[in-house]
Amino acid sequence: MPLLLPLRRIPSFAKPGQSFLSRFTTPPRPYVPRRSFYGYICDTKMAPQLEPFFKQVDDSSETFIDRLRKAVAIPSISAQDENRKDVVRMAQFLTDELKALGAEVEQRPLGKQPGKEHLELPPVVVARYGNDPNKRTILVYGHYDVQPALKEDGWATEPFELTIDEKGRMYGRGSTDDKGPVLGWLNVIEAHKKAGVEFPVNLLCCFEGMEEYGSEGLDDFIHAESKKFFKDADAVCISDNYWLGTEKPCLTYGLRGCNYYSISVSGPAQDLHSGVFGGSAHEPMTDLVHVMSKLVDSQGNILIPGLMDLVEPVTEEEKSLYGNISYTMENLHESLGAETGIHPNKERTLMARWRFPSLSIHGIEGAFSAPGAKTVIPAKVIGKFSIRTVPNMESPDVNKLVFDYVKAEFAKLNSKNTLDVSLQHDGKWWVASPKHWNFSAASKAAKQVFGVEPDMTREGGSIPVTLTFEQATGKNVLLLPMGSSTDAAHSANEKLDRRNYIEGTKLLGAYLHYVAEEPATA
Amino acid sequence: MPLLLPLRRIPSFAKPGQSFLSRFTTPPRPYVPRRSFYGYICDTKMAPQLEPFFKQVDDSSETFIDRLRKAVAIPSISAQDENRKDVVRMAQFLTDELKALGAEVEQRPLGKQPGKEHLELPPVVVARYGNDPNKRTILVYGHYDVQPALKEDGWATEPFELTIDEKGRMYGRGSTDDKGPVLGWLNVIEAHKKAGVEFPVNLLCCFEGMEEYGSEGLDDFIHAESKKFFKDADAVCISDNYWLGTEKPCLTYGLRGCNYYSISVSGPAQDLHSGVFGGSAHEPMTDLVHVMSKLVDSQGNILIPGLMDLVEPVTEEEKSLYGNISYTMENLHESLGAETGIHPNKERTLMARWRFPSLSIHGIEGAFSAPGAKTVIPAKVIGKFSIRTVPNMESPDVNKLVFDYVKAEFAKLNSKNTLDVSLQHDGKWWVASPKHWNFSAASKAAKQVFGVEPDMTREGGSIPVTLTFEQATGKNVLLLPMGSSTDAAHSANEKLDRRNYIEGTKLLGAYLHYVAEEPATA
Repeated sequence: MPLLLPLRRIPSFAKPGQSFLSRFTTPPRPYVPRRSFYGYICDTKMAPQLEPFFKQVDDSSETFIDRLRKAVAIPSISAQDENRKDVVRMAQFLTDELKALGAEVEQRPLGKQPGKEHLELPPVVVARYGNDPNKRTILVYGHYDVQPALKEDGWATEPFELTIDEKGRMYGRGSTDDKGPVLGWLNVIEAHKKAGVEFPVNLLCCFEGMEEYGSEGLDDFIHAESKKFFKDADAVCISDNYWLGTEKPCLTYGLRGCNYYSISVSGPAQDLHSGVFGGSAHEPMTDLVHVMSKLVDSQGNILIPGLMDLVEPVTEEEKSLYGNISYTMENLHESLGAETGIHPNKERTLMARWRFPSLSIHGIEGAFSAPGAKTVIPAKVIGKFSIRTVPNMESPDVNKLVFDYVKAEFAKLNSKNTLDVSLQHDGKWWVASPKHWNFSAASKAAKQVFGVEPDMTREGGSIPVTLTFEQATGKNVLLLPMGSSTDAAHSANEKLDRRNYIEGTKLLGAYLHYVAEEPATA
Repeated sequence: MPLLLPLRRIPSFAKPGQSFLSRFTTPPRPYVPRRSFYGYICDTKMAPQLEPFFKQVDDSSETFIDRLRKAVAIPSISAQDENRKDVVRMAQFLTDELKALGAEVEQRPLGKQPGKEHLELPPVVVARYGNDPNKRTILVYGHYDVQPALKEDGWATEPFELTIDEKGRMYGRGSTDDKGPVLGWLNVIEAHKKAGVEFPVNLLCCFEGMEEYGSEGLDDFIHAESKKFFKDADAVCISDNYWLGTEKPCLTYGLRGCNYYSISVSGPAQDLHSGVFGGSAHEPMTDLVHVMSKLVDSQGNILIPGLMDLVEPVTEEEKSLYGNISYTMENLHESLGAETGIHPNKERTLMARWRFPSLSIHGIEGAFSAPGAKTVIPAKVIGKFSIRTVPNMESPDVNKLVFDYVKAEFAKLNSKNTLDVSLQHDGKWWVASPKHWNFSAASKAAKQVFGVEPDMTREGGSIPVTLTFEQATGKNVLLLPMGSSTDAAHSANEKLDRRNYIEGTKLLGAYLHYVAEEPATA
């Protein structure tokens, strides 16, 4: 864990004003050896015996790829009504596979789809594999639905036929997002059974079928089951994000939150002709553009007074974490497809992405947005922007600063139009303790499988289910990605590299073994 | 002509720096009495004998309304392919009616529709009524196509069934725009024939069928025919705009031009996720909003340096023209549906609309424009704005000021994104001489029919064919509206008041009689 330095031992519960890393220190607690399936562990902890499992994964790799091929062939597109039957078919496929592996499996209905009451939501597939009170219980999450895909969107191959090229790139919708990782857990069970290796933990699975369409109904389900099906979980592992690059594995311990705002400016009762009214009436679009120009500057500095004061200060210790991360400015330029990065080096770039807030203006509803020319004065325009939030920005504080500032800037315009500013939705940031045994187990597993210390990363975006699991179970949540940065999730030519799938299966299995070994932390 | 004061006699050809009204003065030229059908006019000009014509219009009013009913029943929607046959049917209806009245009529093909080569453009219906070299020849323009209309758009009646309510409001698509005015000219011919009154001028008609869809092909046609079918025209009259209010007729002598611009800002190669890239890359939308906020302030002041220096200064004489115009702030508020006018009084409001430039921001292409929330960073955004131009703003001068300023403002942002600014299209402003006999004839006719001096108005918008006729024929062009400000052209429940149609027919006829009488001017 080279990225997390020994620190003074204070309680890890985060408080406003607390230094960044102090939240991750371990409180003093007695070390209690616990029984693993290898026997009682002693102070000199042994590496788990993973060779037979690893060999079996290699031996079964074609079987595992075939499992992925079958899964990709089911177009379980949650956003398209006509594919709902395929989403349900995919749930059944997972159920059958898990049952065949000896797991207890249930399909849990979520009821009708809100707003589309003719459609049943696809079920959550929950499963339990193992029920030994002397083993830790790990709850894993993934999703079996996929984004839409059409060959004509730019796919070089049929999107629902897994196609493997000479470099081992396995193309197909859902290959990396998220069927590969979901099947990784099934592969781990199968390899243990075939190799005759005892499964190191009790495994709980929560596989949903609506992730690409807003995870309808899932939050309530997780909260309800946290004291039922999920009650034994000692920690949570989610494999639904990506490595920072293509070579080095990573563990993800933080996500930014997102507060999404609308600024509505209205004036005339209907759209006006700019020839007739231009110059004689206050134009909502003019006012909106003026107000939006006061939100953020071209260097990404948020101009809302007081907002940056909410942000946890960067310490020298924290800064030192970024130097070792496997990332370069060339990586940024490659992903941008342009050299339009704001910051001069990787450290500032990654901090801007992970641990500082940002403000993006997304667009305007109600204005002319088509190609060509239209001489309209729109009667009502709604500007959309969002702020990515980080510790310790609490949503009500952010909202107050935004609302007060936007209204004050509009008042300066002396316009007779009417402005309204509102929050469309918010999602809180999340930062986990990477000193928890859940992370140290995953770190050791990554080193064992890939031979390198994994990068400890955060993500600039949000994965709302992460926070839901943390809040509902009260347990540590780890994001343990399988795919790489070039996998093109949500795009044409989505793929998962054979290496990431097969070594990733080893990673997930090894993680469970190290989980069984790690001493308790927070 | 109380609105046009006697001025020093200098040539009327407009030159930069020339005072506003001087363009309308008449150069000294010998007065040559010309033969009217009443005989040679003498210095004491007689009012034409209009009573028999007026009486006949009243007697034939039901016939004329029936003519409008038949025309409205033909859904000649030029924008919809499936209605092209109806547009052609409407051309045939006009042709048959004109022939029955004794006119020489031709349907002139315009070829295939550009971009829709499976469609023939509807023909231009040209007609000549009368061929007396001793009479003036007036070229009149109108259009026989209409905007789309569906009952469910909010129509209280069937849009293609002329429906007359108890207040004499005649509802139907095309009633006021522009079938009523076009049929007005036919009614004038019919009333003269029935009343046995000699037709006072030679009439040339140019009725097109694509006005609501960009007048495809018309400009070339007008230029080509200006030395052929239209070569005898002494002046042009267009009836395709509206009174400023509902009670008082007006003559329109000016239109603003329009320069339409795009500002394109691009950065990354594809749209980005704001969670992943927010804060680390220059965002095109941020830059665009900043640049657009520098174009115009909320009070309508254009912020582009030097632009207002191109505008012809307002003289005290010109200011005095606005006081008598029948318009109130309540009229403005009614048409806005809100009290969001910028200026405190009608004079400044009308000047802002007619004789000062304005800048409107219409919208942004490429940004998120739908309802809801999407956390995209658009890769390329194109802001659209236009400047309504007035004398003496020449398009190349305006373009240079715009381009230089936009680029300079963008440079201040120090963004690594790329900006491009370009002109999408321009259309020149137009100001005619309202002291020309074409206008004085119309003014006398309006006073004769409605009992009041007409308002001398300009329009804030553009009617491109106006300038085309002026440039192609070199003759004075008059806009002589029939409908009123409440007619809802282009909207649901379009109507033409019975009074405006019947008295408007008298106006058009009386105008031709006064045309025959007026001494030559410019």
